Parts: sequence; C-alpha cells; structure tokens
Amino acid sequence: MSSHPFDDALRLESMREGREGSVWRGHTDPRYWHAIGPFGGTTAAIVLNSLLQEQTAEGAPISLSLTYASAIESGEFEVRNARVAASRSTQHWSAQIWQKGKVVVNAIALLAKRRESWSDCESVMPDVPPASSINPGSWSELGLEWLNRYRLRVVRGGFEAVSEGRISAPAITEQWIEDYPPRNLDFPALAACCDAFCSRLYLRKGEMLPAGTVSLTIFFHADHQALSENGSKPVLGVARAGRFYNRFFDQHAEVWREDGVLLATSQQMVWFQG
Amino acid sequence: MSSHPFDDALRLESMREGREGSVWRGHTDPRYWHAIGPFGGTTAAIVLNSLLQEQTAEGAPISLSLTYASAIESGEFEVRNARVAASRSTQHWSAQIWQKGKVVVNAIALLAKRRESWSDCESVMPDVPPASSINPGSWSELGLEWLNRYRLRVVRGGFEAVSEGRISAPAITEQWIEDYPPRNLDFPALAACCDAFCSRLYLRKGEMLPAGTVSLTIFFHADHQALSENGSKPVLGVARAGRFYNRFFDQHAEVWREDGVLLATSQQMVWFQG
Repeated sequence: MSSHPFDDALRLESMREGREGSVWRGHTDPRYWHAIGPFGGTTAAIVLNSLLQEQTAEGAPISLSLTYASAIESGEFEVRNARVAASRSTQHWSAQIWQKGKVVVNAIALLAKRRESWSDCESVMPDVPPASSINPGSWSELGLEWLNRYRLRVVRGGFEAVSEGRISAPAITEQWIEDYPPRNLDFPALAACCDAFCSRLYLRKGEMLPAGTVSLTIFFHADHQALSENGSKPVLGVARAGRFYNRFFDQHAEVWREDGVLLATSQQMVWFQG
Repeated sequence: MSSHPFDDALRLESMREGREGSVWRGHTDPRYWHAIGPFGGTTAAIVLNSLLQEQTAEGAPISLSLTYASAIESGEFEVRNARVAASRSTQHWSAQIWQKGKVVVNAIALLAKRRESWSDCESVMPDVPPASSINPGSWSELGLEWLNRYRLRVVRGGFEAVSEGRISAPAITEQWIEDYPPRNLDFPALAACCDAFCSRLYLRKGEMLPAGTVSLTIFFHADHQALSENGSKPVLGVARAGRFYNRFFDQHAEVWREDGVLLATSQQMVWFQG
C-alpha cells in the first residue's frame, strides 16, 4: 500500500536525537513543487512535523513563525531543532532548515498543553455555498505541481482568475480546500492549508508575477480532537490582503471547519515584483 | 536634558560585538511595568532595537516574531542576536532575551531593503473622530504603570471599559495612541504600539483576569520616511479578537497613520485563565 504524497513529503529520518532537540534529514518532493522551490505550505508543515516528532515534544501547536531565506533546492535538506525554554505546560522551540551549509528557513514555535476554559469565537465564518455544490478547479496549465495535490473549490478569488487573466480587486479568496487524494486533517496539513491560496498579487494583477512568501505565522485554534472530528472533509480557507507597499504585501487568512469552528489564522508577508 | 523614558527602557550596552550578531545588556524599566513583568510591547521594541543597532544591520524591518517564555523579572537581561542568513537585500535574524541563564524571549526577524514598486492598500481605516476631538483617558487605578507612558484616546474598547467593569462584546478596540511625553515615531515605538491595547479578555470579561501574550508577530508596512512623516502625532490602533479557545485567544491589530497610511499589522496569541 502506498502512502499519501503529503506523508511522503514530510518524511524525516533522524540524524541525531536529543532531549533538547534533534537533527532530521528530509528530501524535497517534486509533487509539491511550486515555481522555483517547494510550496511554502509544505515547508511549514515539515518544520511543524519535525517538532511534533521530537521525543520531548508535549502539547499542541499554538504558534509557528517562519521566515524563508532562500528557495529550497530540489534534494536533501536538514531540519535542526532546539528546545530553548519549557515549563510544565509550554515549550518554546527554534527550528531551522539547512541546505548546502546555509539556513534556508528560520523558525520559532510554541507548543502548549491546552486546558478547558471559557471559549467563544468572534470571527465570523463567511456565508458560502457548501463544498458539495462547487466543482473542483483544475489549473494544470499554470505548471504549479502542488496545486494537483489539492482539491480546491473556489467561491471567489482562486487560481481560475489567474488562468483567465482576470483582475480581482480587492484580492479576497474564499475556497474549500482538501488534500487530493483525501487525507485526514492533522496539524501539519492544517499548517499547509494556511498557505494554499492563490497569491494576492496574482489576483490583483491577473497574472503570475515574481513573488514569494518571506515570513509566515500560523496560530492554531484547535486541539487534536477538533482536527480528528474534521476527518478528511474540506475546510474553508479565507484570505485577504492588507497593504502592497514597495515590494512587500501582507496576507491574512483563516481556516474554518465546515461546521463553523475556526481552526487556524495566519498572516504572511510576501516579497513581490510588479 | 533628560532622555525620553522609552529611550531609557530601550538602552542597551554592547557586551560583545560581531558581524554575525552581538550580545547586548539591558535593564528593565519600572516605568514600563505591566502586572508581573514588563509591558510586552517594550520587550518587542527592545529586541527590534537591538537588531537595528547591529553593525551589519541593513534595511528596514519587515517582520518580527516573538514568543514569550516567562515573565521577565525586574533587573538586567541580555539580548543575544545571530544573523543566520543574508542576501544583497534581506537579512534573517534570530534573537533571544536571556535572564538568569534562561531564555525568556525567543524571536526571529526579517530586515530588507525596500525598493519602489506598485503599491496599494486594501485594508480600510475605520472612520473615527480625530484624536483632537477625544480626551485622553487615565486609568492609574488599574496599576499598570506602562499605561502612564501613553496618551490613549479611546473611540471604543479601551481600558475605561475595564475600569468601569463593563463587558464589551465583540472585543473591538479603536484608539489613538501616542507616547507620553510625545516622541517621534520610529520602528521600535511602532512595534510597541502594536501591543498597546487593553486585553481582548479584559474587554470580554469586564475585569482584569490572568492573561499574558505568548506569541506576537508584527509586520511593518512602512519605511523610515513614512515614520518620520508621522513625527510625534498620534496613530490609530485597531484590534479585534479571533477565537477564545481552551486558554488561548488571538488578537489582530492594525496601526494607521492619521492620514490613512497603514503602518503595521500584528497578531498575537494570548494565554488566559477565565
């Protein structure tokens, strides 16, 4: 039985294990290739997955922040993790992806044991048609291989706009996202979903221009149970832009469970030419 | 002539300088004390300021992400910086605040040389009364010393609600923020402004309950000129909550120049009891 491509892409071999952090070796997967490097969502997922596999890892992810220093090249890479602080309920980690003697991704993360408390959601899930009523898109002509690893059902602001050369302003995306083939949602997959959007720049310009995420932060609002209750059902991704200014713009995203549970929020800064 | 309290709080002494990163020694300032530790905005500003003072620092801040491991105690601390990757136009830094042999803050940052490009703002500045039409609040009874270092003119959702024991739902804040005494806006001050809000939890509960920021990310949408054009004028801070869930909630904030320029966006995860 073959494994899911996402699990293949996240597979790590332990090079050196330690209670204070380990070194892992991974390999880029061509099935999650973007334009000049891997899809950044997979990269975030690899870092998170490496942390969750640490022998001393405890709790659920609360936040993950990464900056992307340069495009990861096809081939091997190392993830080097360090637990820099820990209490009974929280763990603070540093993580870096190295390739050919250089840091290509610099990251920090917070894990914590959640405990039951008063809870409430103030963000409002957009009122959109159910996933089952929308046909999945296919944009293989764009040459972004990772797109074929997702089934995206676009309400508005998806890759179809770029494919059609259409300008979308404001650059707002609402789309149902699921792995293809389907796969049960877990934290690494949720992290990847936070980046599984058509670029705000492509939407504004109606074409693919040079652009790349340089900084990504993900906040997790779910525990293991909330994810397992999702199973392999599509999640709703919503993304907006803030300001495009002198080569950088910000994107703010939410990922919702079909039944209205906010699973994650994320923001990213993207370098662009245009 | 005495210096501004904010500059005092940010003052660092170089312990070891190096092209790949330096070690700085600072001291907590009681004038920016919160409840059981310093105001987290000052802490973010200290980290950013230490990076901007590095001899090899180039460009403007693009993003700063921090996780707060434990409350900083009154007294000395060290900031240890490392430039982990650099290109002609970008620099990726790691930074940690150490106190008594432990990491209390873990951070990463991205600096970059901005170049002129197509620019546009999609976020919309709320239509609020001008700062000059609102009286500054004073909530010294709350015992949060840092509050006296700011002049806050609240449109809605400020510390007055907590002072009056009033519940605000949803927890939305709109307020004009300026240093007190006035001080020209720079990157560290802008970073601090991103955290100069009444807690979403206090607003929802109408009282001060145990809570503390554990993860903060700031995106900068301004260059030096955009800040110097602000001078010491108040900036508009807007903050919203996402989801309160099992001891953690997220806050999303924007900081606007009076004339409608979006200067920064930030998001934070806050641990809470309640």
